[in-house]
Amino acid sequence: MIINIDTNKKEEFLDITGKIYELIQKSSIEKGIVHIFVQHTTAGITINENADPDVVKDIISTLDEVIPIKNNYKHFEGNSHAHIKASLLGSSVSVPFNNKKISLGTWQGIYFCEFDGPRSRKVIVSIIESK
Amino acid sequence: MIINIDTNKKEEFLDITGKIYELIQKSSIEKGIVHIFVQHTTAGITINENADPDVVKDIISTLDEVIPIKNNYKHFEGNSHAHIKASLLGSSVSVPFNNKKISLGTWQGIYFCEFDGPRSRKVIVSIIESK
Amino acid sequence: MIINIDTNKKEEFLDITGKIYELIQKSSIEKGIVHIFVQHTTAGITINENADPDVVKDIISTLDEVIPIKNNYKHFEGNSHAHIKASLLGSSVSVPFNNKKISLGTWQGIYFCEFDGPRSRKVIVSIIESK
Repeated sequence: MIINIDTNKKEEFLDITGKIYELIQKSSIEKGIVHIFVQHTTAGITINENADPDVVKDIISTLDEVIPIKNNYKHFEGNSHAHIKASLLGSSVSVPFNNKKISLGTWQGIYFCEFDGPRSRKVIVSIIESK
Repeated sequence: MIINIDTNKKEEFLDITGKIYELIQKSSIEKGIVHIFVQHTTAGITINENADPDVVKDIISTLDEVIPIKNNYKHFEGNSHAHIKASLLGSSVSVPFNNKKISLGTWQGIYFCEFDGPRSRKVIVSIIESK
Repeated sequence: MIINIDTNKKEEFLDITGKIYELIQKSSIEKGIVHIFVQHTTAGITINENADPDVVKDIISTLDEVIPIKNNYKHFEGNSHAHIKASLLGSSVSVPFNNKKISLGTWQGIYFCEFDGPRSRKVIVSIIESK
């Protein structure tokens, strides 16, 4: 299953948790793991707090301090910072579900992490059965 | 399956490899992947050296250098550093097993990573069959 | 299934995408997730750009700026930087496939990340069925 995401800023985190809930509901599997994969090299995915939006802002601004947007990079496209952040956060997350209910903690949301937008992006969702 | 973990310090890594071994033993599956998921946004999980405890100390202290505990953070709870470290290490690890034996390398241990303790924490373990 | 990798430098990223393609072809499963696990604590694995080799060079050199090779580390072997980088990039990646074709994006390659070579390394590949 594919989720299409249009990002609006150079760097932003978009909460896709609701879309994952829906795909688990539509599946015939009661218990398992949902695997969410980003098909890009300048975007990542992470799980973090969904209550105070300042958490996501702090993650983005601190990553910019640690991995500067401009630096002595060799890559000709000038977006090496986005590639590095993508590798640090990772290209997939996987979350257990049971009785078709995703087992996220109270404050956990699933965020698509744009580091070189705005762009049209694709995320692939797979459902795996577990015991 | 749920593992309950009580952490004792603000920041510490706890080796949970033994508990994962036990859960694989109790399962009916001979070959597959064990998936270990942290239900929190100020804690993470990682696999690293289990022989010299200085490795884990170096990871914690270097993360504190790169992502300072106090900084210009916006999040009102004052624990943004812990949220950022959680995203950098990730909320899950998954490890293959075969003949009910986990396929960790000689020096690999599975560590629950507390960044904002002490707290009571929960980890969800799922067993998936593979070919 | 095990992939043996001989690295040639202290730090380098090796593209193992072709080997993963082959193992999916040989499997009897049409649709699922391929899980790739590094059995070491001074090496990692990541997915990033396969077109311009400068991207991988920028990742390696920027990680060296953020996590210096020499620092005030306690671990007696002197390779703490490699352990820290291994935890930041992670010990596994997992990628969906469908009709035996891996669902990587156009520019995505799977890289074994050596941080303390040259060494002989082992990677374990598991194939999981999905719906």
